[in-house]
Amino acid sequence: MQRLRVRQALESEAPKENIVVKGWVRTKRENKGFAFIELNDGTSLSNLQVIIDEGAQGWDELERATTGASVSISGNLIESPGKGQKWEVKASELRVIGEADPESFPLQKKRHSDEFLRSIAHLRPRTNKYGSIFRIRSEAAYAVHKFFHDNGFRYVHSPILTGSDCEGAGEMFRVTTLDPYDGKKATPEDDFFGKNTSLTVSGQLAAEIFATSLGDVYTFGPTFRAENSNTPRHAAEFWMIEPEMAFADLKDDMDLGEKFLKSVVSHLREHCAEDMELFSKWVDKSLTATLDTVVEKEFQRVPYTEAVEILKKNAKTKKGKDRFEYAVEWGIDLQTEHERFLTEDYFKCPVIVYDYPKDIKAFYMRMNEDNKTVAAMDILVPRVGEIIGGSQREERMDVLTRRIQELGLPEEEYWWYMDLRRFGSVPHSGFGMGFERLLMMVTGVANIRDVIPCPRTPKHLEF
Amino acid sequence: MQRLRVRQALESEAPKENIVVKGWVRTKRENKGFAFIELNDGTSLSNLQVIIDEGAQGWDELERATTGASVSISGNLIESPGKGQKWEVKASELRVIGEADPESFPLQKKRHSDEFLRSIAHLRPRTNKYGSIFRIRSEAAYAVHKFFHDNGFRYVHSPILTGSDCEGAGEMFRVTTLDPYDGKKATPEDDFFGKNTSLTVSGQLAAEIFATSLGDVYTFGPTFRAENSNTPRHAAEFWMIEPEMAFADLKDDMDLGEKFLKSVVSHLREHCAEDMELFSKWVDKSLTATLDTVVEKEFQRVPYTEAVEILKKNAKTKKGKDRFEYAVEWGIDLQTEHERFLTEDYFKCPVIVYDYPKDIKAFYMRMNEDNKTVAAMDILVPRVGEIIGGSQREERMDVLTRRIQELGLPEEEYWWYMDLRRFGSVPHSGFGMGFERLLMMVTGVANIRDVIPCPRTPKHLEF
Repeated sequence: MQRLRVRQALESEAPKENIVVKGWVRTKRENKGFAFIELNDGTSLSNLQVIIDEGAQGWDELERATTGASVSISGNLIESPGKGQKWEVKASELRVIGEADPESFPLQKKRHSDEFLRSIAHLRPRTNKYGSIFRIRSEAAYAVHKFFHDNGFRYVHSPILTGSDCEGAGEMFRVTTLDPYDGKKATPEDDFFGKNTSLTVSGQLAAEIFATSLGDVYTFGPTFRAENSNTPRHAAEFWMIEPEMAFADLKDDMDLGEKFLKSVVSHLREHCAEDMELFSKWVDKSLTATLDTVVEKEFQRVPYTEAVEILKKNAKTKKGKDRFEYAVEWGIDLQTEHERFLTEDYFKCPVIVYDYPKDIKAFYMRMNEDNKTVAAMDILVPRVGEIIGGSQREERMDVLTRRIQELGLPEEEYWWYMDLRRFGSVPHSGFGMGFERLLMMVTGVANIRDVIPCPRTPKHLEF
Repeated sequence: MQRLRVRQALESEAPKENIVVKGWVRTKRENKGFAFIELNDGTSLSNLQVIIDEGAQGWDELERATTGASVSISGNLIESPGKGQKWEVKASELRVIGEADPESFPLQKKRHSDEFLRSIAHLRPRTNKYGSIFRIRSEAAYAVHKFFHDNGFRYVHSPILTGSDCEGAGEMFRVTTLDPYDGKKATPEDDFFGKNTSLTVSGQLAAEIFATSLGDVYTFGPTFRAENSNTPRHAAEFWMIEPEMAFADLKDDMDLGEKFLKSVVSHLREHCAEDMELFSKWVDKSLTATLDTVVEKEFQRVPYTEAVEILKKNAKTKKGKDRFEYAVEWGIDLQTEHERFLTEDYFKCPVIVYDYPKDIKAFYMRMNEDNKTVAAMDILVPRVGEIIGGSQREERMDVLTRRIQELGLPEEEYWWYMDLRRFGSVPHSGFGMGFERLLMMVTGVANIRDVIPCPRTPKHLEF
């Protein structure tokens, strides 16, 4: 007998005899002489309805087929006479594989809070919402790889362990084979790698190695921040996507970012329609509108200096009240309220702000001719805020050396990074995007913990 | 003017006027009145030949266009009158973007040892061999994702940071935000996560969470071993692929492993033909034959007990000498020499050995009815050895509990893992494959350091 996945059964084009379906019982309704089982095997949000008549083989097992139990059902796939589904299975045999004691199985049919479900992260993907989230996460990762692959980018596994503590993107975790608690004095030389070792905060520097040899490349891997912040937008471990292009300037970078976002969102709308709908219906009513602007509208591109002018001109509301909590001056980093004003109120579409003041951006960003701004760009999305941050990299040996010295960075640590400028240097550009930010954007889920299989935050390291 | 990548130019179907190509000079041959440049931009192994006549714009820059320099060339793509290439560029303009001082640029036109190239891992992808390796690595990763995606598997990002020190696959690195060298006594409670924290050695346990909710899943991410071993087959950081299937037994697992390997190798032969040829020609003369057996031959499946019988019967060569250094007895772990005998001499094809003695396998593998063996399987490939190791997992609560107790493992740490058996338990199976092993198999490269962008081994943490 042929085993059908639930998704295959639901998408069937014709009735099928003698099939087997396996999965977990979501609900069961018992009537006199027959019973319905809603079966789910994780392949789709929708359940497959199973009808079993009294007297069918395994009818006496029905009692044990409670919510959460795993079962195997043989029978025929037939057109459903009932409403709400095209197909159902008429069972000839029911077999319970693994029980789920109704007294202790936590996922009974009722609404559970996200907080509670985080405490059983090993079971939450068995719920509708988290099943959908992790199917979307999977398909989004595929969309990312497919986009870059189809556009000629090579995938690079940038290293996770790094001896450089100057990737410049935040607090780092340390890695050791010594016991960090035993109170014994030691030196880096005693350790596994013979030097200070950390977990990467960005794959960019390594991506630059490969952009300047293979051409267009991207990384997609885990990155880490040891920041002790308990916000809905921060996790200690998350995945980043970092493309890097050789012979490319800031405009190319903006073009790539816009094309990339449009492509991934379109892919998900096409391939995860059912799962995506759950979120626009139940999680975020404005989701469809937000994603429409990403896919359909041309992103507005505005220099930082002009963005600041716009914000200053709109510092007061029509009623004369202060619009912003944080005052706007040239040189500040834009706050969420400023970003939201630009995207939601002023331009009403995604916005790319570029040419930022050098003092609020990283050392490796290319200095503009004004000597005050660098060729950086951030992509802002309505209701979401910053989703992508990128720049053209400083490819001029002398300018980069000066920047490193100005900022007091340890020049000798960058010897190989400088070599990329010393030998056949080329203009190159790239950006970084937190994969979870993307998932929060496409689902409307507000807490990063809820789009990560096993989230890691301060004092949380379970599963 | 349209920019063409070198690969696009080489694969062009017609001449093209007014194009731009950008890349790095591999070699230059100057003649009286004209010069040839071999240009490479990393998109293919083959270079694009450029011919520039004296008097063309930028002719005076030719001197600076040395090996390794980056250049931009405008001109026409024309049919090459010369041998060895279909297309060449007739340059109307040459512009040097970044020089590469011939005195100091290390990649002059000569053979460099792999050892030397490891010391300049930031430049080695600019060589033919390493360019090919990292293009193959990228395409192989894509082939992995495509295979699983097309077969209905969901991709899971299993966590890198783990509080479990019992994933059971080797020595672990510790992660901390404390200073491991300062000699101050501390406790795990003082640390970022409030408990002992390590880098994962396997994503399997987390994959089981998702197999028992979404169905068929796989992980593909970095894993770590803190083993102080300096062999050509060990690295401290490498990428692993771990599929996990619900409602699947050991036979399903073997079927998946065989289908997976055949698919990835076939994909690479189709999509990386030129790069693959470099290795069969220059690195490993037997490579084609090895890969042929993977793609074309049905894998021979043999129980461990039978494999031991075969080895014992063949313990002596025809001339009466000991064939093996390590004697074979039921219960031993097979050595490389045994694996090679089975695959290369006896069966002459890939071999799947299954049903191993429980004492040499992990606690989570499913106990067979004989109570002596477990439902484990290893896939062995001629000249390569073990490439895949997998098993059916113990899904029976009572049996698993007994195994954990027998082995003295900390039961309380497995509470969530046991829950997967407590609630709707299902037979499930999976395997692990080191991605670098796969790359070594398809390229014949003998040292794992040479297929990793920035390899990490004891005392080596550069780039």
